Amino acid sequence: MIEAKGYATHSPDSPLQPYDFQRRSPGASDVQIEILYCGVCHSDLHTARNEWHNTLYPSVPGHEIVGRVVAVGTAVKGFKVGDLAGVGCMVDSCRSCPSCGEGLEQYCENGFTGTYNGPVFGGENTLGGYSDSIVVDEEFVLRISHSGNLAAVAPLLCAGITTYSPLRQWKVGPGQKVGVVGLGGLGHMAVKIAKAMGAHVVLFTTSPGKREDALRLGAAEVVVSKDPQEMNTHLNSFDFILDTVAAPHDLNAFLALLKRDCTMTLVGAPDSPHPSPDVFGLIFKRRRLAGSLIGGIAETQEMLDFCAEHGIVSEIEMIDIKDINEAYERMLRSDVKYRFVIDMASLKAA
Amino acid sequence: MIEAKGYATHSPDSPLQPYDFQRRSPGASDVQIEILYCGVCHSDLHTARNEWHNTLYPSVPGHEIVGRVVAVGTAVKGFKVGDLAGVGCMVDSCRSCPSCGEGLEQYCENGFTGTYNGPVFGGENTLGGYSDSIVVDEEFVLRISHSGNLAAVAPLLCAGITTYSPLRQWKVGPGQKVGVVGLGGLGHMAVKIAKAMGAHVVLFTTSPGKREDALRLGAAEVVVSKDPQEMNTHLNSFDFILDTVAAPHDLNAFLALLKRDCTMTLVGAPDSPHPSPDVFGLIFKRRRLAGSLIGGIAETQEMLDFCAEHGIVSEIEMIDIKDINEAYERMLRSDVKYRFVIDMASLKAA
Repeated sequence: MIEAKGYATHSPDSPLQPYDFQRRSPGASDVQIEILYCGVCHSDLHTARNEWHNTLYPSVPGHEIVGRVVAVGTAVKGFKVGDLAGVGCMVDSCRSCPSCGEGLEQYCENGFTGTYNGPVFGGENTLGGYSDSIVVDEEFVLRISHSGNLAAVAPLLCAGITTYSPLRQWKVGPGQKVGVVGLGGLGHMAVKIAKAMGAHVVLFTTSPGKREDALRLGAAEVVVSKDPQEMNTHLNSFDFILDTVAAPHDLNAFLALLKRDCTMTLVGAPDSPHPSPDVFGLIFKRRRLAGSLIGGIAETQEMLDFCAEHGIVSEIEMIDIKDINEAYERMLRSDVKYRFVIDMASLKAA
Repeated sequence: MIEAKGYATHSPDSPLQPYDFQRRSPGASDVQIEILYCGVCHSDLHTARNEWHNTLYPSVPGHEIVGRVVAVGTAVKGFKVGDLAGVGCMVDSCRSCPSCGEGLEQYCENGFTGTYNGPVFGGENTLGGYSDSIVVDEEFVLRISHSGNLAAVAPLLCAGITTYSPLRQWKVGPGQKVGVVGLGGLGHMAVKIAKAMGAHVVLFTTSPGKREDALRLGAAEVVVSKDPQEMNTHLNSFDFILDTVAAPHDLNAFLALLKRDCTMTLVGAPDSPHPSPDVFGLIFKRRRLAGSLIGGIAETQEMLDFCAEHGIVSEIEMIDIKDINEAYERMLRSDVKYRFVIDMASLKAA
């Protein structure tokens, strides 16, 4: 076994605090990674606080992991000691169902194994990236070819793939008008990626103060979604809309902006329902409301390579791990531009 | 002008009663049709009673029209006196927008002209098929090649195309498991058409008493949707679900039955919203909730030809036009198997 150090919480209302635990020693197909940076996703907070009512304690969150390979099993072919490597939301899946066969492990019909909080359908707990090391089967380890700011690559492992996958799925490309709802951790990645795919990107926000940032990040237009008049000028004009906002909100205002036969995809999971969408809005233009969950391993690699090629990283604020509880509070106030990343070197001091 | 006789209502709470009015004389591209039968659609009732808050009075409903050509304009090429002909939900559209260019007049960006209650986006009233004649541009007149029961063909012009179009759009065919929610005017057509397309059809109903009928009409299985245990045996197994129920109901129970990447299409428009669909149900299988509105003219012709080829007509109960108000009350109680059709010969006696 390997001695590991991390931050964990032991109940929904207790703070994250230092926690010593053990990882398995790397087996034949495993990669052992020294974690250098870990992004802070809103799902970490949902899980730490049991807001999805399925948390296994102790809970060590973190699934936007980048680091350096420090050991590999005898059968590992794709990684060697010293390589940069990433781990996202999954560390395993059944590998035998049709979804796994298609490289869509996130839809594994037997439930993928989350990087933290164990298999989706129940089972032994797994402990995530708020820690100094992790051991993962190489099939679920990603190669990182970015040069430069490695910390800012970490959020690609969840925020990046969660937005890249539906943009690819719905064939976003040049000549298309694409909407992104919300400029947060996911939204700001969606703006950068959709622009790199060649789309004319329109960012929707309720905060007029985010206009300059959105334009800087790649949006061609910014629409304040609280202004019905401004919204009306965009009726029936979008090829695709990616809604990244998890808080319950009116979907109709955005559905009405889609062209006929076009789709709005939700990637945020609200803890109480959105107001019910208007069926007339779907019927009268044959529109579609869809969902999307992260992305498969092969697609995550494709996304990382795409982002490296286009110089895309996340906009981050680096924190020490001792400040994680305060970071959660700030995240709840949307007081982050646009993703917290934990500098895992700070764990040694904690 | 042509003297016409029909049934109209003059306010939301007054009954339909005999009404004399005038139709235009056929112009160069017009076809004049003696109406023999007209189906009774729930939209007729919504409009007569102003339940969609847009009714122009007097209102002569009826958009499931079949009859015989009695005159044609000098430029008409596709019809001659004596031909059988049909008219559905539309009698005109802008004919110049992209949707019209693609043969999708139902999504005309300038608003199609409804067979009754005028252009969708407002304008002069039009009077529908509860009458002895109608004059329509030949571009919006359908050819009927069914032999036999002409009255039972009438409901194809709305109930038929409303279900055929999404089944085609989502490529229903052999080897697929297809759900139809509700066994009413639309649902019973969907069962027949989906079966003729080669699908394994499962009918969902809240009424166990409809089981025998559904099997007779072509369903391979019948599931009582109120029974969670029965529903659970079908989780993640459907390639497509067509939801024909307009009354507000729980969509999640059906969305959960879709396979990954599959779609449920709504064709019923409730007058109050459905409970809001669960976003997790969309996200975790990348499912889609869509809408669909009738079908274009070319596709309506394709549907009529398909139904003639497969011997598909509606299950009808013929009524005299004097009984239309009572038929509406029975329709509200779902006391019809499965579509009322007005025998327009009864208008002469009215």
